[in-house]
Amino acid sequence: MERQIYLENKAWQEGLALMMEKLAERCVPKNEVVDVRSSLHRITGTIIRAHRSSPHFAASAMDGYAIRAKDTFGISEREPRWLELGVQAIQVDTGDPVPEGMDAVVMLEEVLELGERGILLQAPVVPWNHVRPVGEDIVEGEVLLPIHHRIRPQDQGALLAAGVLEVEVRRKPRVGILPTGDEIRPPEASLQVGDIVDSNSTVLASLVEEWGGYATIWPITPDQPERLEDAILKMAESQDILVIIAGSSQGRDDYTSHMIEKHGTLYLHGVAIKPGKPVALGEIHGKPTFGIPGYPVSTYLTAHLFLEPWVYQLQGLSKGVQTTLDAVVSKKVFSSLGSEEFVRVKVGKVGDRWVAAPLNRGAGVTMSLVRADGMLRVPRLQEGFHEGETVPVELLRPVSELEETLVCIGSHDLTLDVLSSHMKARGGQGGIASAHVGSLAGILSLRKREAHFAGIHLLDPDTGEYNLSYLQRFLPGREIALMNLVYRTQVLIVPKGNPLDLKTLEDLAQPGIRFVNRQGGSGTRVLFDYLLQKQGLSKEQILGYEREEFTHLAVAVAVASGSADVGLGIQSAAEALGLDYVLVGEERYDLAIPREYLEEPRIKTMIAVIQSKEFQEDVLALGGYDVRETGVFYG
Amino acid sequence: MERQIYLENKAWQEGLALMMEKLAERCVPKNEVVDVRSSLHRITGTIIRAHRSSPHFAASAMDGYAIRAKDTFGISEREPRWLELGVQAIQVDTGDPVPEGMDAVVMLEEVLELGERGILLQAPVVPWNHVRPVGEDIVEGEVLLPIHHRIRPQDQGALLAAGVLEVEVRRKPRVGILPTGDEIRPPEASLQVGDIVDSNSTVLASLVEEWGGYATIWPITPDQPERLEDAILKMAESQDILVIIAGSSQGRDDYTSHMIEKHGTLYLHGVAIKPGKPVALGEIHGKPTFGIPGYPVSTYLTAHLFLEPWVYQLQGLSKGVQTTLDAVVSKKVFSSLGSEEFVRVKVGKVGDRWVAAPLNRGAGVTMSLVRADGMLRVPRLQEGFHEGETVPVELLRPVSELEETLVCIGSHDLTLDVLSSHMKARGGQGGIASAHVGSLAGILSLRKREAHFAGIHLLDPDTGEYNLSYLQRFLPGREIALMNLVYRTQVLIVPKGNPLDLKTLEDLAQPGIRFVNRQGGSGTRVLFDYLLQKQGLSKEQILGYEREEFTHLAVAVAVASGSADVGLGIQSAAEALGLDYVLVGEERYDLAIPREYLEEPRIKTMIAVIQSKEFQEDVLALGGYDVRETGVFYG
Repeated sequence: MERQIYLENKAWQEGLALMMEKLAERCVPKNEVVDVRSSLHRITGTIIRAHRSSPHFAASAMDGYAIRAKDTFGISEREPRWLELGVQAIQVDTGDPVPEGMDAVVMLEEVLELGERGILLQAPVVPWNHVRPVGEDIVEGEVLLPIHHRIRPQDQGALLAAGVLEVEVRRKPRVGILPTGDEIRPPEASLQVGDIVDSNSTVLASLVEEWGGYATIWPITPDQPERLEDAILKMAESQDILVIIAGSSQGRDDYTSHMIEKHGTLYLHGVAIKPGKPVALGEIHGKPTFGIPGYPVSTYLTAHLFLEPWVYQLQGLSKGVQTTLDAVVSKKVFSSLGSEEFVRVKVGKVGDRWVAAPLNRGAGVTMSLVRADGMLRVPRLQEGFHEGETVPVELLRPVSELEETLVCIGSHDLTLDVLSSHMKARGGQGGIASAHVGSLAGILSLRKREAHFAGIHLLDPDTGEYNLSYLQRFLPGREIALMNLVYRTQVLIVPKGNPLDLKTLEDLAQPGIRFVNRQGGSGTRVLFDYLLQKQGLSKEQILGYEREEFTHLAVAVAVASGSADVGLGIQSAAEALGLDYVLVGEERYDLAIPREYLEEPRIKTMIAVIQSKEFQEDVLALGGYDVRETGVFYG
Repeated sequence: MERQIYLENKAWQEGLALMMEKLAERCVPKNEVVDVRSSLHRITGTIIRAHRSSPHFAASAMDGYAIRAKDTFGISEREPRWLELGVQAIQVDTGDPVPEGMDAVVMLEEVLELGERGILLQAPVVPWNHVRPVGEDIVEGEVLLPIHHRIRPQDQGALLAAGVLEVEVRRKPRVGILPTGDEIRPPEASLQVGDIVDSNSTVLASLVEEWGGYATIWPITPDQPERLEDAILKMAESQDILVIIAGSSQGRDDYTSHMIEKHGTLYLHGVAIKPGKPVALGEIHGKPTFGIPGYPVSTYLTAHLFLEPWVYQLQGLSKGVQTTLDAVVSKKVFSSLGSEEFVRVKVGKVGDRWVAAPLNRGAGVTMSLVRADGMLRVPRLQEGFHEGETVPVELLRPVSELEETLVCIGSHDLTLDVLSSHMKARGGQGGIASAHVGSLAGILSLRKREAHFAGIHLLDPDTGEYNLSYLQRFLPGREIALMNLVYRTQVLIVPKGNPLDLKTLEDLAQPGIRFVNRQGGSGTRVLFDYLLQKQGLSKEQILGYEREEFTHLAVAVAVASGSADVGLGIQSAAEALGLDYVLVGEERYDLAIPREYLEEPRIKTMIAVIQSKEFQEDVLALGGYDVRETGVFYG
């Protein structure tokens, strides 16, 4: 089988439209009948009408007495009248049937006197006074629910009240999911080098469930044409929609498109979106069939674009309207011409503006989906967005949650996660959305009013002081509160046992010692440069000075994986990965908060959490932190 | 047991706050461990950290060749170099491990020549080029999910990728629901006069499910203290929260509050809200216990106010933020001082404004919950809202759906339901929200720009013409398109077999014949008055002229239930209830649509549906309709 290097590069909308046009008539929604009591969130497959009226008898709407209205005609304050109890007046409670022959109810409060002779009235009563007639609420034969309605709790109540016990709903579309690939392993397997865990099947099955379908995950099938063919044809027998999670890219033999061509029709192979290129759209035995790429972000995205409309189609629904909002892009987004690119972003409301901060764009970066609050689309014939441009963002979280989220842009510190968790533990929905771009970039975000606060640890080499001089320099005239979050220990992170016996900064200049650095503008980089200068070392002497990582953990990972011998970072990062470390010094990590936000309830909650004993105890438990000034404001 | 007439009338927030204060410490969330693959939508009960890094090996990020970077140092376009295949260069596909000793990948496209000697390169490669280092995506020990996070599909993906197979989540709070009352019957029972079907238990169970709890419905228990006591104490053994659906009002012996007093603490009995007064809040054996009123609307509302916060509390969450929007009230809302009243409303967007139209306010009217799009709160010390006032509405449906909804205010006709269903069948989410207030009130709604269109059938007694003269009189200077929806047959609706042998309008003036009328301003009322006048009859001659119903179906119900002998209405209403009828005449039912809305996509869809054969066939199937001018515009 030859290697397929170039895929067609069609606009994906065309491919999907072609598929819909060819298949929609053959793929129609099916109905099934379910008990109303287990019909919550099902989609009605027909108009639902009432089987009986409610109330089904004339009922009293008040506590009082059922009477005949004509017995009260002529009564007035000057001519009150007694109605005989049990004959002319019968006591009823709210909801009781109005006895045969009676046609009105007087309230307890309207009875002037209650005595042996009966009840004394001083005003006439009109017929049907305080009586709920049959069918006041629901009339037999009345339409209770339209077709294509998602059944809610109150709908179930109305159905039961109207004597409807069973309801015709859309059968959930059955979606078969086939994970394929020699290197794919089930989650419980112990992984060898080169193995990939199958997380995509679960993600797809859960998405299908959210869209109203019913997913079945097939066993992982290796890249053998006969076994794949067998599995796909088996799926086609019982499933409404077939999804084959393919090997990840062009480099892999792509059987799915061949299989679709052999047993059905291939409508599209390869699409002009990024991430997600090697998609196959077609049908096998009349079932919509999708070859989905195996990179997690591509899987998620292509499922939304191609699979979701079909799961809706088979319920008779159109795909739900995506909630979008307009947000300011916090940094320039580059994108290549010719592909529509989907960029994951963090979203937060700062002042009156929504801000979108782009996340890591690799197709394999699962965590970018976990962290993302929304998605930006860069159109096919556009090269990206400018910083500060206002663009529509498709939301992945409810607006109400985003409104409660604090945006932190700046340096990375592990205690920010602890802080966010503590805030959520207090029952808030929002927590903290943090973008790790380094201290200096964090300060610039405050200047652009794109963050509520910035985490910074910038040493002024001239004074040996932290943070304050940078705020004065980069945010002149702006009132900024500076609060300590923690003191933290910076260390040389080395492998377990410190095999190269690295003790000082000078040791890093030894030939062959591979260093891993932090990115420019990060506090740790500033510190490193300061320390080099103090020791009289030049960056040319450090092998790996140019290799930049963006977080403490990434530096620790480089050491743990053996791709570097040493890096500079915080002690807690070394401890998190079970590495050894050499103390370098202590530094101050502060939060810079513009004064205008200090009165916001979310900020107040955050400050209260930082000043709480519970938070500080959890921080100390991480190791490498000191909380002696935690929660203290400077200046 | 004595009748309890006056309940305490506290502000409900105080009662709930007291209950929270007293019980919150004893009622804390519990955790359980579940498989990640079945954890969708569960709430994390702790911080979740990665068990392993991802990728767990250094992987190629491209299709190409793994090499040693140092083998390429010094290469240039003028000095290209061959790397020996299998020794200095090993072919890798995207995702493959980078072989031991290699530290970079060159892309296929960067290889100048592929031959027997190996691959020819013309540029040096930096270390870690196109290599995804261990932990690029997820670092072992890293926080994947915070506490109190609702697990989404992409979160499951990240957990599995990070080797997390089981996850600690909040145990779903167990809510026991006890329906009580001698008159309460299960849905499958055949009902006698006075029986009430238990629909509340299902509504509550579904609400609890939506809030993240797990509900169990106990068998219906009659009003016997020993049996109630027995059931409640049994529930307290296994459930976290106890809900007793009580008899409906003060008129009923209220055992629940006594039971709470006997076995625990009663915090509040009776609350200042409407509908929903007789609520009891307390605890039994430390379990939050609620006595909830039995009227469907009260049940729903009090569950939201009191039960929902506790179901959240036991998951460590605060109650979700209610989505609200500002809307103009379409008619005056009266409310009594001293109670906070909750008014159900229909909501639609007309032009740039949201409009809220109040629905029937009875506590027993289940359908008002089905029809409602939102809820207005009238504060305790306010007497209501003025027409045209802008007020916040708490939404019961997603905004995206409401934005697609057409607002129809005017006369009632059964074909409007058919029309709405056909629109939904085309996959739209919105359909038609119709408020039945009569033709004239519909025209006035157009004047106030509170509806997209009005359904009207107003006969001009002077000319015998329909609708046009009314539009000219009440909407002078406004451009209104008038389109026929149907011609319909107006009939005298009489019981099956027409026992009183009513044939003409004159027959209604016979002594003892009980008529049921439509409300003033309705087209049918205008028609009736016109016919009376033509026959030389006066309204004083008609017994029941003052008894007004608001819909055709309500008139038919009055006849079907025997509370009236005859009414005037449309033939299809008589047919819907299996009644007999006497032809009176045909009338024209039109839609009046301001021209400014004609270009709206939703209106265009509606017109296309009205003009479709499928719609017209369904209308004819109802009986009593003629579609000869359906979809035709007049003038």
